[in-house]
Amino acid sequence: MDEEIKKALSRIVGEENFTDRLIDLVTYSYDASDHSHRPDAALWALHADQVSQILRLANEHGFPVTPRGAGTSLTGAAVPAGGGVVLDLCRMNRILDIRIADRLVVVQPGVVYADLEKTLAPSGFFFPPDPASGKVCTIGGNAATNAGGLRGAKYGVTRDYVLGLQIVLPDGRILRTGTGCMKSASGYDLTRLFVGSEGTLGVITEITLKISPRPLATTTACAMFQDLRNAGRAVSDIMHSGIIPSVLEVLDSHAVRVLRDKSDIVLPEGEAMILTETDGCTEGETAYQMDAIIRLFRKNNAAEIQLARSSEEAEGLWRARKAVGSAAAKLRTNNVSEDVTIPISRVPDLLTGVAAIVARHGLPFVIFGHAGDGNLHPKIMFDHSDPDQVRKVQQAVEEIFRLTCSLGGTLSGEHGIGLAKAPFMALEHDPVAMDLMRSLKRLLDPKNILNPGKLGL
Amino acid sequence: MDEEIKKALSRIVGEENFTDRLIDLVTYSYDASDHSHRPDAALWALHADQVSQILRLANEHGFPVTPRGAGTSLTGAAVPAGGGVVLDLCRMNRILDIRIADRLVVVQPGVVYADLEKTLAPSGFFFPPDPASGKVCTIGGNAATNAGGLRGAKYGVTRDYVLGLQIVLPDGRILRTGTGCMKSASGYDLTRLFVGSEGTLGVITEITLKISPRPLATTTACAMFQDLRNAGRAVSDIMHSGIIPSVLEVLDSHAVRVLRDKSDIVLPEGEAMILTETDGCTEGETAYQMDAIIRLFRKNNAAEIQLARSSEEAEGLWRARKAVGSAAAKLRTNNVSEDVTIPISRVPDLLTGVAAIVARHGLPFVIFGHAGDGNLHPKIMFDHSDPDQVRKVQQAVEEIFRLTCSLGGTLSGEHGIGLAKAPFMALEHDPVAMDLMRSLKRLLDPKNILNPGKLGL
Repeated sequence: MDEEIKKALSRIVGEENFTDRLIDLVTYSYDASDHSHRPDAALWALHADQVSQILRLANEHGFPVTPRGAGTSLTGAAVPAGGGVVLDLCRMNRILDIRIADRLVVVQPGVVYADLEKTLAPSGFFFPPDPASGKVCTIGGNAATNAGGLRGAKYGVTRDYVLGLQIVLPDGRILRTGTGCMKSASGYDLTRLFVGSEGTLGVITEITLKISPRPLATTTACAMFQDLRNAGRAVSDIMHSGIIPSVLEVLDSHAVRVLRDKSDIVLPEGEAMILTETDGCTEGETAYQMDAIIRLFRKNNAAEIQLARSSEEAEGLWRARKAVGSAAAKLRTNNVSEDVTIPISRVPDLLTGVAAIVARHGLPFVIFGHAGDGNLHPKIMFDHSDPDQVRKVQQAVEEIFRLTCSLGGTLSGEHGIGLAKAPFMALEHDPVAMDLMRSLKRLLDPKNILNPGKLGL
Repeated sequence: MDEEIKKALSRIVGEENFTDRLIDLVTYSYDASDHSHRPDAALWALHADQVSQILRLANEHGFPVTPRGAGTSLTGAAVPAGGGVVLDLCRMNRILDIRIADRLVVVQPGVVYADLEKTLAPSGFFFPPDPASGKVCTIGGNAATNAGGLRGAKYGVTRDYVLGLQIVLPDGRILRTGTGCMKSASGYDLTRLFVGSEGTLGVITEITLKISPRPLATTTACAMFQDLRNAGRAVSDIMHSGIIPSVLEVLDSHAVRVLRDKSDIVLPEGEAMILTETDGCTEGETAYQMDAIIRLFRKNNAAEIQLARSSEEAEGLWRARKAVGSAAAKLRTNNVSEDVTIPISRVPDLLTGVAAIVARHGLPFVIFGHAGDGNLHPKIMFDHSDPDQVRKVQQAVEEIFRLTCSLGGTLSGEHGIGLAKAPFMALEHDPVAMDLMRSLKRLLDPKNILNPGKLGL
């Protein structure tokens, strides 16, 4: 990158918000994925006007700009694949407005999920998507990737809560989408064109979020099944029952075994474990729902059922689910964690199908995830220094994507596409849909300066 | 329209699905709005391939195509403003798939809302948006206009339930958007680009809808306030309380008066009436929420509170809300019903502001609507044969739109834009947003054949 351009960038954001030091550029080469590419410079923008000037300059000189929040992407969405500039939005981290009676907050993109949660706690409200990286990830990243979490079946994902955005378009123009109203049927849904677009169509500089009251009561229980099909039928029966549990997590036999072997958690053996939570305003409501669920566990031959009688006991049940990722990660130096999603009734098919695929390639793995919305996380452990294992994991992942799409599923329930899944987009989307996505990208970003190389476009 | 083109259209759909008889063309000139324009022909399509052929022909010869469901639009969205062909989708009316365990149904666009509701009832599930025209309106129309109803505050609108679409693009290509999964973060959100686009970007030929379990218990209550500000504070307090009522309807003093004068419903006088409903799985849950609401009614000096002790009593309370539209309509031969929406805390400001505007023009009116999501329906009565009254109502409506947008509101919460609000889009959307909407329209429909003249584009 030309030194003159670097000077111009530095003038836009101020010297203290510009860097081309090697140590910074190495850091900004990575996100939480296996992908990396070094940028030529990194910038911290402080307001939308700076973002606008940066994008105008990028259009003029044709260098790529990759927006970035906390860099927790598991798919390479924040990796500057084409070099150029990383545009770090973490210093735009103010909560601009909290309006409980209007059920909304207005935040800058760099606000950390957990900080918003903490700020909202005294009001009894929250922003429900609850991504697993919530302690560090930013709301801007949540919106850009349509982030989700384990309460999605009842509470939905980020898309369902973004009411409006301030966006800087690739040509530098600034616009507002959406409203501060709970509903609107006024023109094209520009807001959701940008939500989940992974920073390829515009840079999000302000977000208006709908918030919800936090449930006052919860009940937690856990069931072990000796037969995967029984667990699958229990999930299916629960979804038929008229109860929408706030949590319905499944752990496969490999996850159960890893927890028994690699953690201090005491678990019976089993082919599948289900952790569930119901919520509401009253304990009667949560108990009613949990009774119905437990009846369905029993009907489907659950070998063991534990119902938490206190919040301490509930935490105990949660420990297994929370520990499974890190316990499994101990098996090898590296791992990939996918987030394939299928229609809920196909959960058993995906569990058995994925297990067969990964076993065939001889790699250790676990599968866990959100049965209530069909979002499963196959986590495969391997050693990056062994080319044979790398090849095997790549093959296994591709086969998992093919299986998922053949079951009517989607490549991503909550992590997004980024670089990692870009080559597989055509497995899920038909040629006309892919062409339409490419047309939208060309319309908004004809010079392809904004986060190029992502989404398979 | 050239006779050769008519013959070609008739060949595509079959003679029995083509008409250019005057009586049919007059019928298809109208929807439920005050707007009208006569088409040159009308067609019933039976499948997506026919729609594709029709749109290819339209592109070739440059005639407009206006898709239509049941024609219940209050904004002229289904009026063929540029002539050409009305494409009636009501004969594509099959429910293609019901998959309760997957929480979804797949329907053709001509399925009537009430028919889907009836079909789903035995399963205990429903498609929640519940538009007021539900007895006759079609799911295709719901999706095309992002229809909503009076349970929006708790259950959301059509946009929140459309998982995927089959779409015929203006150039005749057919694509599938979205998935049959509860969540997806895979590429641009093409589904929501089409939801609410009022048939200007593509023709919806199949819809995959998320469905929800119907609540098992409800409680209904009603409160009369002698002071509008007190009612407004009650709404605000309820939204702060952590309770999201499934219904929170407000009727202004004019609505109360019309019901007293023009119906057999016995009501005390008052400045504002609130009807509310809470729901859940158990009676304890609904009672807990209702107790909290009633405490807030009392705190804000409600003059009279009625709590329904049976489903018959609940129906009695609903009667006032349900009768207000028709009771008011008796005042003059014509009326307009708007659906302006503001942030919830501005409900009292909009109620008093609208009342002042319409009173200044000397026309009878009522205001009612969904306080829980800030969506109000000012209904103004007038006589269409009196040019002075027509001018006054037009002026009043424009002033209402200006007031709404100045309060941070949106022109439409649930009716859409169509022809009626097209001239006012720039009050709500900034020039860059308007330009982006126009660019999207040009990208997808460069010859402007699909429902031209709508949305102010």
